[in-house]
Amino acid sequence: MQASELQNKFEKIRANKWFEAFVISVIVISALLVGAKTYELPAAVSSLTVFLDWFISAFFLTEITIRFLAEQRKRFFFKSFWNWFDTLIVVISLIPADDTELALIARLVRVFRVLRMISIIPELRILLVSLVKALPQLGYVMLLMFIIFYIYAAVGSTLFEAINPVLWGDITISMLTLFRIMTFEDWTDVMYETQEVYSLSWIFYLTFIFFTAFAFLNMVIGIVVNVMERENEKAREEKAAELKAEQVAKGTAEPTLSEVMDELKAIKAALSDKHK
Amino acid sequence: MQASELQNKFEKIRANKWFEAFVISVIVISALLVGAKTYELPAAVSSLTVFLDWFISAFFLTEITIRFLAEQRKRFFFKSFWNWFDTLIVVISLIPADDTELALIARLVRVFRVLRMISIIPELRILLVSLVKALPQLGYVMLLMFIIFYIYAAVGSTLFEAINPVLWGDITISMLTLFRIMTFEDWTDVMYETQEVYSLSWIFYLTFIFFTAFAFLNMVIGIVVNVMERENEKAREEKAAELKAEQVAKGTAEPTLSEVMDELKAIKAALSDKHK
Amino acid sequence: MQASELQNKFEKIRANKWFEAFVISVIVISALLVGAKTYELPAAVSSLTVFLDWFISAFFLTEITIRFLAEQRKRFFFKSFWNWFDTLIVVISLIPADDTELALIARLVRVFRVLRMISIIPELRILLVSLVKALPQLGYVMLLMFIIFYIYAAVGSTLFEAINPVLWGDITISMLTLFRIMTFEDWTDVMYETQEVYSLSWIFYLTFIFFTAFAFLNMVIGIVVNVMERENEKAREEKAAELKAEQVAKGTAEPTLSEVMDELKAIKAALSDKHK
Amino acid sequence: MQASELQNKFEKIRANKWFEAFVISVIVISALLVGAKTYELPAAVSSLTVFLDWFISAFFLTEITIRFLAEQRKRFFFKSFWNWFDTLIVVISLIPADDTELALIARLVRVFRVLRMISIIPELRILLVSLVKALPQLGYVMLLMFIIFYIYAAVGSTLFEAINPVLWGDITISMLTLFRIMTFEDWTDVMYETQEVYSLSWIFYLTFIFFTAFAFLNMVIGIVVNVMERENEKAREEKAAELKAEQVAKGTAEPTLSEVMDELKAIKAALSDKHK
Repeated sequence: MQASELQNKFEKIRANKWFEAFVISVIVISALLVGAKTYELPAAVSSLTVFLDWFISAFFLTEITIRFLAEQRKRFFFKSFWNWFDTLIVVISLIPADDTELALIARLVRVFRVLRMISIIPELRILLVSLVKALPQLGYVMLLMFIIFYIYAAVGSTLFEAINPVLWGDITISMLTLFRIMTFEDWTDVMYETQEVYSLSWIFYLTFIFFTAFAFLNMVIGIVVNVMERENEKAREEKAAELKAEQVAKGTAEPTLSEVMDELKAIKAALSDKHK
Repeated sequence: MQASELQNKFEKIRANKWFEAFVISVIVISALLVGAKTYELPAAVSSLTVFLDWFISAFFLTEITIRFLAEQRKRFFFKSFWNWFDTLIVVISLIPADDTELALIARLVRVFRVLRMISIIPELRILLVSLVKALPQLGYVMLLMFIIFYIYAAVGSTLFEAINPVLWGDITISMLTLFRIMTFEDWTDVMYETQEVYSLSWIFYLTFIFFTAFAFLNMVIGIVVNVMERENEKAREEKAAELKAEQVAKGTAEPTLSEVMDELKAIKAALSDKHK
Repeated sequence: MQASELQNKFEKIRANKWFEAFVISVIVISALLVGAKTYELPAAVSSLTVFLDWFISAFFLTEITIRFLAEQRKRFFFKSFWNWFDTLIVVISLIPADDTELALIARLVRVFRVLRMISIIPELRILLVSLVKALPQLGYVMLLMFIIFYIYAAVGSTLFEAINPVLWGDITISMLTLFRIMTFEDWTDVMYETQEVYSLSWIFYLTFIFFTAFAFLNMVIGIVVNVMERENEKAREEKAAELKAEQVAKGTAEPTLSEVMDELKAIKAALSDKHK
Repeated sequence: MQASELQNKFEKIRANKWFEAFVISVIVISALLVGAKTYELPAAVSSLTVFLDWFISAFFLTEITIRFLAEQRKRFFFKSFWNWFDTLIVVISLIPADDTELALIARLVRVFRVLRMISIIPELRILLVSLVKALPQLGYVMLLMFIIFYIYAAVGSTLFEAINPVLWGDITISMLTLFRIMTFEDWTDVMYETQEVYSLSWIFYLTFIFFTAFAFLNMVIGIVVNVMERENEKAREEKAAELKAEQVAKGTAEPTLSEVMDELKAIKAALSDKHK
């Protein structure tokens, strides 16, 4: 009985509007704190941030505990991706940071507390979920793009390593260089350098740009067609529902041709009956 | 009575075609004047521009006064956004500019008189309004993008400040640097610099580019789908109106099945009447 | 009579397939010649190009004369844009070039003979016409973009002229610099330079990029919606034609409800006749 | 009989799941090997790669032979593009490589074995086929783009060769420079250099950027409209099939108006019969 009473209490806290507003404020403050710490702060403010950090960590821990205890069935709590997400952020940000090495990591980890902004705003959650859902549909185009990158990186590394090992040292570095070329970032400097040795190497760069541009275009079209199909599907369903409603409405007002036919046959029968 | 007579007179001026053409000419001249002043001008022309400036200011003030006085109900005048817009431009450009400091500001303010070009051409007004209307629909994508920028800027500032304080000094500067990376402007120079210390920092840049590219793509698709939905909505409404017109036309020409049925029942009744 | 005979002869030449093939060959050769002359050629080949140039000029003149004489009504010849286009190219390329100054111009003018490639291939003509037709629809977006450029160029020239007169000297140069910024070409170098004096000048660059990107997006969407509407219009027309054909087909096979009703009324009348 | 028995055996091998999995593993290993060889490897591993290379070559040869022998009709084997593709890759990678010159080519050829990844994954095959199919539809836009490039390259080479022969030496180099300008890669550096001699040369660059951007936009729209038409075609076919199925279903349940009319005429005839 007592446990259930406590649970009710926690559920009330969780559902309380003021509590929710306070959680959002703390998240916003933690985000601002992360930004503030990148500026050079006077000593007084600096010690305040240390206190604030501890307060935020403690508060986040309390909040997640309340949400966990407020859950009727504990198993359900960990079925939600966003609960995992929040718990992970909170637990990781509890890492103690005395060492200078760890201090940097602790600071970085606290940056990710800003991500709670996404988990608290439902619209952002939907956006992120839809982003993640769109990825696998593009899987094969991405695989094709990876193969293009891989082949060109292997060729580039084989031919151009002697010319500039910083750009074409091994296949990983070459892929990074190719990504740079795809973004058109000083790609002619890379090309002119290799052209001095292999004067036809412009073919390598131009075909690469064409292939990736084409694959990229395909990707974009894939997404657009996807979105359009979803829209059309929705429109079709709406139309079907409308049609059905219309038919139902008609059913009561208008007879079908079959009923007309039955009526006619009855008249014909009546006529031939009389005839006899 | 006298006030009403004056108002009629002002209304006539406002509606006069020659007056309108003159207003447009003055706006175009003010725009040309703004451009001309960026060239080095001979002393004679320079003094002419001073005169022209005063003339344009005076004329704009007169014009807005006429439009205000021509308005039947004075309250309505300030309900229009574009009246506010014009009044603001005119009032600000009256700031006196003797001081050298203020002279610069006065020159800048006069540049904005070119904006009256937008308020005077209805098609540009519509364009601007539609631009502004499209913004809030993209609100959440923009918020997501800001969060991505904020987190990456915080991480970048924490890790790379020691390497290059000019690019990663604090979170604001870091966000500007990230915007630069998003436009692919010499982004590899920024990356190569940090890679010398953190050899894995290419992950930071590549994931950032992927996330922002994805969010940006989402934004574009959002706008396109929006535009398409509006178009489809329009098409659907047209079709519905067409269908209704067709049904009305049919109603007079074609009987419904119900009417046919009623007729049949009458015949049947007549037949059975006879039968008795 | 004689004139008419000559005309028939010219018409036959114009319609001759071998003549047409020869015209195309000469156009291709003139294009190749233009390209060849950009290489350093041995003296023998060089004198050949001079001869070829004269031959091509003479041939083009002959061909256009034949086409003109083959036209039944001379007035119609100059009603076609493409005839004007070809005539202009041919006439201009006849400019004599003795002087070294004029020699350059004569060479340039001959480059434009390549444009005859467009006038001879019907699909390219259609493409070009559709490009030109799309322009006025985008007129107002382009005007808005010009106003944005003009205002920012005026502000930039006013504020930054003292910092770098090469980039911000007057409004024309400033507009060129802004176009460069729109293409993201080393735009941060321009920004960092002005930021040293006006530390807030990043606002100038970022708002400019946002405005132009938005206007550009609007332009693209405008084109896409245009294309889609044209497609939908075509689809609707096809559907309407189909529906009409269907109704015509039905008209012969299926009676209308009105005809059924008339039949019923006749029966009813017959019944009541009998009744009396 | 014996040949047929052997064939059955080969067919069984080809269809065997374990064999297929092994083929895919070898392809993946050959891809990894290509990547590994771009790193500096210890001597032991290096000699292993030589062995692996020979094993992969031998295995690919065996596999293609099995697939050829398993084919019922040998002629059909070479009707498939992908069989040609695989055979070509395998045969080329058998080139012996003793010479240092040839060693490089042999290494490059082995890189293309990664392409077998595409021929083995059906989804990637479809993607590639659709990419290739989209190309000819864009043929005329590409021809137009080539003509634009050719004309501008000829003009550029004529005017600017004296200024910078590295960028504008002949028409081929000029086209490469123009491609660079199209990607906005340091295009202002190229422009500023020529502007010192011809101060109006910005017109050359800006018109070129506008023309190519426009042609490119046309290309993208062409692809999008293509994709949309295909989608609409599919939707229309589905709808037509649905309608037909509906009509068939209706045919059994609902009489047509013609049948109703026939019935009515029979009644009328019966009535007039009686009347006589």
